[in-house]
Amino acid sequence: MPQAECPYCDGSAPGRVVWSSPRCRVLLIEDSPFVGLCRVVWSGHVKELTDLPQDDRAHVFEVLCATETALRELLSPDKMNIAALGTAMPHLHWHVVPRYAGDTHFPEPIWSTPLRDVTERKLPHGFAEDLVVALRSRL
Amino acid sequence: MPQAECPYCDGSAPGRVVWSSPRCRVLLIEDSPFVGLCRVVWSGHVKELTDLPQDDRAHVFEVLCATETALRELLSPDKMNIAALGTAMPHLHWHVVPRYAGDTHFPEPIWSTPLRDVTERKLPHGFAEDLVVALRSRL
Repeated sequence: MPQAECPYCDGSAPGRVVWSSPRCRVLLIEDSPFVGLCRVVWSGHVKELTDLPQDDRAHVFEVLCATETALRELLSPDKMNIAALGTAMPHLHWHVVPRYAGDTHFPEPIWSTPLRDVTERKLPHGFAEDLVVALRSRL
Repeated sequence: MPQAECPYCDGSAPGRVVWSSPRCRVLLIEDSPFVGLCRVVWSGHVKELTDLPQDDRAHVFEVLCATETALRELLSPDKMNIAALGTAMPHLHWHVVPRYAGDTHFPEPIWSTPLRDVTERKLPHGFAEDLVVALRSRL
């Protein structure tokens, strides 16, 4: 059941949909300081990964792996981070974050105190479209 | 190949082994302020989840799900967090973190600035042994 005031239920969470199935979607956060940051969002208002039945867990994991692979191939980050937190908003979503030596927080987590000013790194021209193609080819 | 000065390769990373296979192990961090914090550590010095072949990915995902399930059943946390960061030490490991309303950082990520002093919550007596049994029954 959709939950009132949940941005993942009402669709107000930021990000451009670059892939979706009836069960989940991948959002690209185009204006993030973490260039290429995507979120894999489960469609239903489910709190934890292990609230999902096995088949759904496998689906979200496949989407996570495809998203990580596509981001690595398109952006060649120095490291990838994957995290399902949702402590403030318990609707299952995963941050899939390309990290670069010299990003605002590297090598610390993106939720820690920034170590430096915003970097000048930008998404490559046409990146969202390339990501759509890359995800579609893998999922 | 083991990597020099990697605490996950040389076994110096903190934590009590509560389950292991040849491919990975689960460590319980008994003195963490995040009560019940476990780490799922891949045995080889592998950087990213998607560096693993499919069968190994499925194995680590099964271990993650079993760890989350066991922690939820034994500790009834308010939320679970799962994260693979490793930006400072690129040896694949996952934080599996029970979160409680009133923990030092709730509802913010555990890597952010603390919101309150250390809570008095403690691991239940015999918890590590119970976790060993719970993981063994699921894996």
